[in-house]
Amino acid sequence: MALIVQKYGGTSVGDATRIKRVAKRIVETAASGAKVCVVVSAMGDTTDELVELAAKVTDREHEREMDMLLTAGERISMALLSMAIMDLGRDAISFTGSQAGIVTDTAHGKAKIIEVRARRVLEALEQGKIVIVAGFQGVSTEFDVTTLGRGGSDTTAVALAAALDADVCEIYTDVEGVYTADPRLVPGARKLHAVSYEEMLELSASGAKVLMVRSVEYARNYGVLVHVRSSFSGNEGTWVREEDIRMEQAIISGIAHDKSEAKITLVAVPDHPGIAARVFRPLADAGINIDMIVQNASHDGSTDIFFTCPKSDLQRAEPVLEQIREQIGAAGVETDPDIAKISLVGAGMKTHPGVAADMFDALAEAGINIEIISTSSIRISCVVRAGEVEKAVQAIHDKFELSDEAVLREEHPETATGQLKALRVDGSNS
Amino acid sequence: MALIVQKYGGTSVGDATRIKRVAKRIVETAASGAKVCVVVSAMGDTTDELVELAAKVTDREHEREMDMLLTAGERISMALLSMAIMDLGRDAISFTGSQAGIVTDTAHGKAKIIEVRARRVLEALEQGKIVIVAGFQGVSTEFDVTTLGRGGSDTTAVALAAALDADVCEIYTDVEGVYTADPRLVPGARKLHAVSYEEMLELSASGAKVLMVRSVEYARNYGVLVHVRSSFSGNEGTWVREEDIRMEQAIISGIAHDKSEAKITLVAVPDHPGIAARVFRPLADAGINIDMIVQNASHDGSTDIFFTCPKSDLQRAEPVLEQIREQIGAAGVETDPDIAKISLVGAGMKTHPGVAADMFDALAEAGINIEIISTSSIRISCVVRAGEVEKAVQAIHDKFELSDEAVLREEHPETATGQLKALRVDGSNS
Repeated sequence: MALIVQKYGGTSVGDATRIKRVAKRIVETAASGAKVCVVVSAMGDTTDELVELAAKVTDREHEREMDMLLTAGERISMALLSMAIMDLGRDAISFTGSQAGIVTDTAHGKAKIIEVRARRVLEALEQGKIVIVAGFQGVSTEFDVTTLGRGGSDTTAVALAAALDADVCEIYTDVEGVYTADPRLVPGARKLHAVSYEEMLELSASGAKVLMVRSVEYARNYGVLVHVRSSFSGNEGTWVREEDIRMEQAIISGIAHDKSEAKITLVAVPDHPGIAARVFRPLADAGINIDMIVQNASHDGSTDIFFTCPKSDLQRAEPVLEQIREQIGAAGVETDPDIAKISLVGAGMKTHPGVAADMFDALAEAGINIEIISTSSIRISCVVRAGEVEKAVQAIHDKFELSDEAVLREEHPETATGQLKALRVDGSNS
Repeated sequence: MALIVQKYGGTSVGDATRIKRVAKRIVETAASGAKVCVVVSAMGDTTDELVELAAKVTDREHEREMDMLLTAGERISMALLSMAIMDLGRDAISFTGSQAGIVTDTAHGKAKIIEVRARRVLEALEQGKIVIVAGFQGVSTEFDVTTLGRGGSDTTAVALAAALDADVCEIYTDVEGVYTADPRLVPGARKLHAVSYEEMLELSASGAKVLMVRSVEYARNYGVLVHVRSSFSGNEGTWVREEDIRMEQAIISGIAHDKSEAKITLVAVPDHPGIAARVFRPLADAGINIDMIVQNASHDGSTDIFFTCPKSDLQRAEPVLEQIREQIGAAGVETDPDIAKISLVGAGMKTHPGVAADMFDALAEAGINIEIISTSSIRISCVVRAGEVEKAVQAIHDKFELSDEAVLREEHPETATGQLKALRVDGSNS
């Protein structure tokens, strides 16, 4: 008998009507003969509302108590969903993260799952029950309630799928799957039939919001087959899985963009060995996440150092930066929140030279200036002005012929024009 | 070092401002050198709102999931209260019912506490922390989340006070204590300095809302000293405790009233042995709480049977009653929701004849008809028309001279007029 883990996000269970619709979908899956374990997020904006409530009481950080507060959200959605399923004639039972055996470390607010003790979940599934598990939460080795950080419900679902040896982990969301670019920016963006774990990791890390990085890492580590699909349609979505011989090697999977970071410049840094460590060690110690780092060629014995970090870390970073500036004798610190990062991701990039050059060409032709460049073996990222993000993504999407029309051309080679072969969309219903 | 358990109801923590005020009060108690364990209810109307939300999803009863849903409420209030206390410079930690070791039976929605494993609470108190515990909830012997029923937070507080061997269990509420009658009905009602467990039990069972019956039973069984007082003032409230020689034997403690019941009449029931069992067994099996039962003297071989039950049970009772009527061959069933029960409670009643007669006199003088009478050794209850409840309570209050003026007269015997001795109000600040 198949075992399916399904995860529904906050939008999918945003009100009573939506909860009933999701219940219907779950019951249909169960009626097909599968055992079903469902992971659910808090309803709609519940988590944000609880954060606001806390802000009215305190302006400090109380991580343990914040986790206690926030975990109220899934309790509500999972109990309601369980009731709605029972109303449709199927037995259901809801479990908190703790009851479902999601054991984490003690890092409140960003806990990592260290073990899944799924005995109760398995027993309930054996008894023919549909099991509803609270996403985003667990219990620490110190028996305290923890949360996994934003998007943690995806990780809960993948971790449970691994522990239960599920056939598939279905992530239901408000879009149809993973696209070659954000469809709100690029109307011609195409839904991908499949991406490899590595590509999905790069896309998620580069700003694609459809799946959180940690859940993809977890899926890769445990070989969990993930299916990202819409909770509003019956269409097949995007499969995230091992790269294998059945997957045609695509050069480019998609384009991600990210406007959540800021650029920081340390101006006129004296250029001598050890300077980078003296800059980035204090930032790491302060828990600031540094992303792209670029150091200009030295001239006159001094250099500029550029890097990016989340805008949300900026306030905490500023006093640290000022200290660093004094210590290393830099001329100044400039922060610029008005940037965007555009990333082109594709597993085939490793074996196809010229992709980076094509990307830079596309941006140049669109008159867009590149401020910082960084690359991995399957990703190229460029920082541009925030206002140019839409134009930039569209230009690159066009350059690499990622839209449906391009794929059609690809499938009829006689009309193909580009040198790049796009990912085939086998069996896609879109 | 003194150990104090404090319980704050939903009104006391209704919003961020009130939570901060309660936090201040708790920190002041701790600053006096006591260890403090706080039991807290859900904020304001949270529980009602969650019930409404469930009603939008389902019209059936799903008791286990309802408990999962409702227990979200205290999670929110206790985390916020804990944060507010830490902001005032004291270490605090919140525990769910489960974490606090409140072990219950498996009767969802009305679970009974069967054990308190207070190890974690004690450890935290030893570490100098103020401990916040979720009221109203526990964990069952089957490891499911349970609730103790409305007013269950009082029971949580008393049970914890017993387990921790606390010096006192302070129940904070929105009134100043226990009164001789509802002050909204009787402006001259007087706050009692102390009542015995037995009197408080009768008052609570008769409709006094200030303390739930079960919490008083628990306090009596474990000898927990309870102090009912206002969260909006620093005044001493009412002590609930063992009757002892220091408590002057009051004849009358107070008057309670209850408009939540309905009267049911089984008309012209054939009068033969065993008929009462055939009436009340099926009602008991259906879980209907029957209160007062009166059977009229038989005439012509048939009799009327009257009894009361909660209005909220009426809908469930009606089909059962119709079945009973057919089986026993009664002429009809009449239900009347328009009644009120007035109860006069006092430990001294046992040794003072004539109290019942005085109560009936008071009602007769006020022109109020008594429909049903029932008594215990320290209580007399009368059912009257709902519309007459205010007049009835005032008339009895006057008759027994329970107001402040009456007590003043009592303390200066030269002006005393009545034969009854009211409870002395030692040390009361009211």
